[in-house]
Amino acid sequence: MTTLASAITTPDPAALEEWLDETPDRGDRERQLRELATPDRTRLVAALQPQLADRLLAVIEPRTAANLLTSASPATAAGLLAALDSDIAADILRELPESTAVALIGALPPARALVLNGLLSWPPDSAAAHMVPEALVISKDQDVDSALRQLREQTAAAPVDSLAAAYVYVVDDDRRLLGVVSLQHLVLAAPGTPVTDLTETDIITVTADTDEEVAARTLTDNRLAALPVIDENSTLLGVITADVAADIVEDETTEDAERQGGSEPLDVPYLDASPVRLWRKRVIWLLVLFIAEAYTGTVLRYFEDELDAVVSLAFFIPLLVGTGGNTGTQITTTLVRAASTGEVGLRDLRKVLPKELSAAVMISATMAAVGLVRAWTLGVGWPVMITVSISLAAIVLWSALVASILPLLLTKTRIDPAVVSAPMIATIVDGTGLLIYFMIAKAIIPELGQ
Amino acid sequence: MTTLASAITTPDPAALEEWLDETPDRGDRERQLRELATPDRTRLVAALQPQLADRLLAVIEPRTAANLLTSASPATAAGLLAALDSDIAADILRELPESTAVALIGALPPARALVLNGLLSWPPDSAAAHMVPEALVISKDQDVDSALRQLREQTAAAPVDSLAAAYVYVVDDDRRLLGVVSLQHLVLAAPGTPVTDLTETDIITVTADTDEEVAARTLTDNRLAALPVIDENSTLLGVITADVAADIVEDETTEDAERQGGSEPLDVPYLDASPVRLWRKRVIWLLVLFIAEAYTGTVLRYFEDELDAVVSLAFFIPLLVGTGGNTGTQITTTLVRAASTGEVGLRDLRKVLPKELSAAVMISATMAAVGLVRAWTLGVGWPVMITVSISLAAIVLWSALVASILPLLLTKTRIDPAVVSAPMIATIVDGTGLLIYFMIAKAIIPELGQ
Repeated sequence: MTTLASAITTPDPAALEEWLDETPDRGDRERQLRELATPDRTRLVAALQPQLADRLLAVIEPRTAANLLTSASPATAAGLLAALDSDIAADILRELPESTAVALIGALPPARALVLNGLLSWPPDSAAAHMVPEALVISKDQDVDSALRQLREQTAAAPVDSLAAAYVYVVDDDRRLLGVVSLQHLVLAAPGTPVTDLTETDIITVTADTDEEVAARTLTDNRLAALPVIDENSTLLGVITADVAADIVEDETTEDAERQGGSEPLDVPYLDASPVRLWRKRVIWLLVLFIAEAYTGTVLRYFEDELDAVVSLAFFIPLLVGTGGNTGTQITTTLVRAASTGEVGLRDLRKVLPKELSAAVMISATMAAVGLVRAWTLGVGWPVMITVSISLAAIVLWSALVASILPLLLTKTRIDPAVVSAPMIATIVDGTGLLIYFMIAKAIIPELGQ
Repeated sequence: MTTLASAITTPDPAALEEWLDETPDRGDRERQLRELATPDRTRLVAALQPQLADRLLAVIEPRTAANLLTSASPATAAGLLAALDSDIAADILRELPESTAVALIGALPPARALVLNGLLSWPPDSAAAHMVPEALVISKDQDVDSALRQLREQTAAAPVDSLAAAYVYVVDDDRRLLGVVSLQHLVLAAPGTPVTDLTETDIITVTADTDEEVAARTLTDNRLAALPVIDENSTLLGVITADVAADIVEDETTEDAERQGGSEPLDVPYLDASPVRLWRKRVIWLLVLFIAEAYTGTVLRYFEDELDAVVSLAFFIPLLVGTGGNTGTQITTTLVRAASTGEVGLRDLRKVLPKELSAAVMISATMAAVGLVRAWTLGVGWPVMITVSISLAAIVLWSALVASILPLLLTKTRIDPAVVSAPMIATIVDGTGLLIYFMIAKAIIPELGQ
């Protein structure tokens, strides 16, 4: 097995190519790149031929690629960037300090610099920021042979992205999008077939300012290799390709996961995040949750006399609030995921609520039964046993109600439903669960009667 | 805006096509399909022309497509299935009762039935179960013109999947994979160019029994449109396409999210899950966690005398264990996500642990400070204030240690690290956190001294 460190000890670029083929896993590549000593990084960048640049820099994290480029001279770095598809090149440039990015773009051929500056001028979360402007484009009134001749001329200088090339776009003289034909159909049609016979005129498109995630989901929802990006006049600006859509979905999934864990998104790959960044992104939510959780202390102090009278009530506090939090977490996690794939939204509440409450009734019956057994094993006497059992049932139902409604409500706001995290649900249920517990205790336990 | 219900009131298939174009979002399509009354479903299936079947059935959940097919006569259903790519058809057949699937396959043309039975015979989580067997294939010793003629003959009957068609595979007489050339390069090359000049012989492949998730990640990690699946003799069995890889990643992400929420994966789309299924998948973990959490009661009973002596110690129980759980959840969620994208594994523990512990030291200092303030506002006196503050710091550090190590350890086992859920971490930290709290209390608070 070739390692990266050994591959770059020889000046032969074939060794590097072999390493790439033998290391198809992105995590492994990243790991070996990170572990490279500085002189080795410099040697690697020097050994990168443009065609290898495309194979290496396009399939690692943009941040790692940006770091590598900073080890090269501006001229070399510009040469490597020029070999990449423009959407990938733009992603890498976004990770560089602005002055470095400007210098690199300045060292590129003018046409290329124009394209990259165009991409970088779009908001980073818009569809247009992620497109390749180059696509296979033909005019409509011709037959298959002349269309292929037109494509050959167009791509003589540089072929387009291989996913973008799955489709050939039919445009008018102002590059307005009229239709699409798959390259396969065009190539395999009988010579002389008019292009119009093969063209599909119902096209799914997005506009330049469409949110990147909506664009990515539109592409994957429709099993496309590439999705055209148009402006308000239907002019074809470029296409988003399936690989970039997968990157966008992956990044959004990571952000959702981080929010679900009760943290702000890190915004960088985990291994690149410094301890200070981890602290900053996490401590905000910890403090918010701490303050929200603090009222559990107020609730408990309010019931101080009851606790003093029946100290065994305290034994069950973590168990009750824990079970409430767990029940709620199960529900929110499922609903947040279903909301992020577009499966459910607020309009589905009529279906979600009866389903969740039916399940919660079964769960609360189960937990009431095991709660009774657990209280019995602690030998706390019948009144506390019954209090614990009924409280468990009530807390499970209450938690299910909150957890079913909250994420769906947020789908109608600008707040990501993923902020309804396990810690947040646990925090909401903790204090209210204690209230429920002590109110039930006061109603049932004779010593606590008025 | 056309709705599905209105589109199928007219017998014109163009209305249905218009609906599809105006409803690019899969969630919206699913919603309208689910809400269709039974007679409308029957009318929809009757109106589906084979070419529309491909556009509709391929872009909804396989389960929903399977339900639709059961509203049709076997002959109609078989006709619709025949219009789909075989990977999609196999996914739909997997959702049907076995007898229905067998009957449907029996009604297909024999060649097609053979292909589908072949796909269904692979384990459902293998790469081979998700491939399209049809790919563009040419032999090596020829030029571009004859290669294109060969492709035209091969696909005269049926074009291959449009993502699979991004690449043309070069094989020998036994269909052993020798190399690959992009369709674009082949088409746009000068006529007469030998195929060998364009062929890339270093190919990333997977074998038939590769795990589906590994195959999907290999495809996306390398920005491919399609990934060849070979057997042990390098024979080309088929290709996995990028859209199916996206489906696999999406399903795995949903399973991970469900596990992270402390539940077993539902295995069906959320809206298809019955309350009994929700109960079954959730109650297992709730019971496990309940039993694990029950020892918090044992810990508290053990410290009953201390609680009785200083009842204000009880006020902080939910706050302390809650903060411990939250800290741990933040860490495990981030690490589980990084492990599932392949960014970190057990071998990165040397990097992860110092990073997490440094962040945890900063977090524990912050929480100790706010804990002191909170205890002061409850007026519990200096000894309890200091106990709470030190305990918060200690619990945060302890939780960070457990949460950093546990998911990484699991990456080396057959257990999915995603089972280290927020509820699980909270449960682990709750009891141990209470032990830490009361031990610190006994050391600091004079009334609890021996």
